[in-house]
Amino acid sequence: MRTIDWVSGHIRLIDQTALPGTVAYLDVHTVEELVDAIRRLAVRGAPALGVAGAMGVALAAANLPADRAREVIATLRAARPTAVNLALGVDTALAAFDRGGAAAALEAALTVRDDDIAACRAMARRGTALLDQLLPHRSRLTVLTICNTGALASVEHGTALGVIEKLHADGRLHRAVACETRPLLQGARLTAWELRQMGAPYDVIVDSAAAITILRGGIDAVLVGADRIAANGDTANKIGTLGLALAAARASVPFLVVAPETTVDLETAGGEAIEIEDRGSAEVCAFHGIRTTPDDATARNPAFDVTPADLITAIVTDQRVIDLSANEIPAEGPRPAQHAG
Amino acid sequence: MRTIDWVSGHIRLIDQTALPGTVAYLDVHTVEELVDAIRRLAVRGAPALGVAGAMGVALAAANLPADRAREVIATLRAARPTAVNLALGVDTALAAFDRGGAAAALEAALTVRDDDIAACRAMARRGTALLDQLLPHRSRLTVLTICNTGALASVEHGTALGVIEKLHADGRLHRAVACETRPLLQGARLTAWELRQMGAPYDVIVDSAAAITILRGGIDAVLVGADRIAANGDTANKIGTLGLALAAARASVPFLVVAPETTVDLETAGGEAIEIEDRGSAEVCAFHGIRTTPDDATARNPAFDVTPADLITAIVTDQRVIDLSANEIPAEGPRPAQHAG
Repeated sequence: MRTIDWVSGHIRLIDQTALPGTVAYLDVHTVEELVDAIRRLAVRGAPALGVAGAMGVALAAANLPADRAREVIATLRAARPTAVNLALGVDTALAAFDRGGAAAALEAALTVRDDDIAACRAMARRGTALLDQLLPHRSRLTVLTICNTGALASVEHGTALGVIEKLHADGRLHRAVACETRPLLQGARLTAWELRQMGAPYDVIVDSAAAITILRGGIDAVLVGADRIAANGDTANKIGTLGLALAAARASVPFLVVAPETTVDLETAGGEAIEIEDRGSAEVCAFHGIRTTPDDATARNPAFDVTPADLITAIVTDQRVIDLSANEIPAEGPRPAQHAG
Repeated sequence: MRTIDWVSGHIRLIDQTALPGTVAYLDVHTVEELVDAIRRLAVRGAPALGVAGAMGVALAAANLPADRAREVIATLRAARPTAVNLALGVDTALAAFDRGGAAAALEAALTVRDDDIAACRAMARRGTALLDQLLPHRSRLTVLTICNTGALASVEHGTALGVIEKLHADGRLHRAVACETRPLLQGARLTAWELRQMGAPYDVIVDSAAAITILRGGIDAVLVGADRIAANGDTANKIGTLGLALAAARASVPFLVVAPETTVDLETAGGEAIEIEDRGSAEVCAFHGIRTTPDDATARNPAFDVTPADLITAIVTDQRVIDLSANEIPAEGPRPAQHAG
């Protein structure tokens, strides 16, 4: 399954707004349609948005005069302003277009796609190897995760859920536990659907059940993705991740962050420098149009939280494993071997 | 506001299934109607169920021949088998009935009601005094709570929310933060409604936002109720409480359990002896009939979790404050001054 791909001269993507009820593919022939799909969250997830951005440039380059192409590409680049991968994907394909025209733009977009697939495979390999090392006496693991970090957030496989997929493929997964991930339920809707697709045994839990599940529920490891990793290893990720890390530390359960090397941000010294976006009350106070609070209630709705490095066992990227278990973080940060672009 | 009361020879209670949209009172003239209200969760919360049980006996005693009264009272006692307070309330009023007939049963029921109100007032006094002591330099507090521990769970005031109500009445509440409390949203629906009724400023958060809110959100104290307190101070409470305690400990924020002395269970040595009830998949996998997971998904749905005593700053009851902050728990348990029945 590919969340997003290039098929017969256009983009085909899974419409994630229809999941888990319906698997619908969206054939996208214009950048306007793509921008709409991105805004509606029909396609989401940082790596997938990078590919969407690059393929959008290829689409415009193939079908529009250069001037008009540049106009719609600018709109595409700003479709979700906080998604840095979207802009990166656009910029990569646009640079290729400037150098070699439409064919070069398409080739660059396909390379972004293929690089993402390869990076996810590398993370899955490294992640499962690390689990072997950390838990040598457990033949089959029960793992807990949050949000959606699977193929639906990338092209194939995903990050944290990609490790779980490989555990399952290798016959080493006993059971996965997916936090539902309020307020938008990416765990209940998307991760559960992906686990079902791969035939992996799983349970859903409400997010607040994670702590006791980690302390008492036979969880062998917690695997999460990352939105941004600071130079000292502090990690911003989906709201709720910090709570999982606190529980895992209390239970001495390995807590692994799985994310591409591009997520490591050496410009950010530590977690305290990461500003936390508040997405407003509406997502919290109603569900499918049904009000869950008094009409005039307000909500705090932080989109992510920051997990301090001392609560993280290791960070697994496509390039390396950063061991934080002994809290041996050099003053100048985890020092990536390379900061892949 | 009284959640449940005796009015002109019958029971009047707030129908909690209609909240927060509508404030509807239910006039209950028969035990059959009361059993239905209990089963539908129109009335809920351990102390409120105790009063409901006692008043149900008074209702039967006043209106039915003794034999028939005993039959319906047996049904009432078993309306929610795990709610020990319901049975206790029934037994108290039934013993009075055996001694002195219908008038004695009613008097006993009114005493159960009045004792609950007095206990809640005592907890509010002790709780606010303890906060004064713990946070002498904070003139107005921002506090975080979970589930509904207010008047709606008792007769008036409540336990943890009763402390918050008194803080507000004393002009010492800056803001309250209510965890929505998945899966049944007692925080979003009921606690938010009570805070609104009392005119207290508040925000709702998704449960998974509690950790970062406690670590970064200016929370001065966390206040929770309790379903059962073991002899060593380990506390069973609504699912999600443990996560709040882990975050509060990390942030050095006071974490207070507020519950009547009757909640202390010296028969249970420690939290590991408390079995955690699983309420099944349905509550987690759908919301108002709308499926949130794949159709055949299963959920783990623990109804409560257990917070170890070392994460609790103090337990506040109607009788005393048990200081656990220095982890000075005597081997034989917190040793209640008296175990109020």
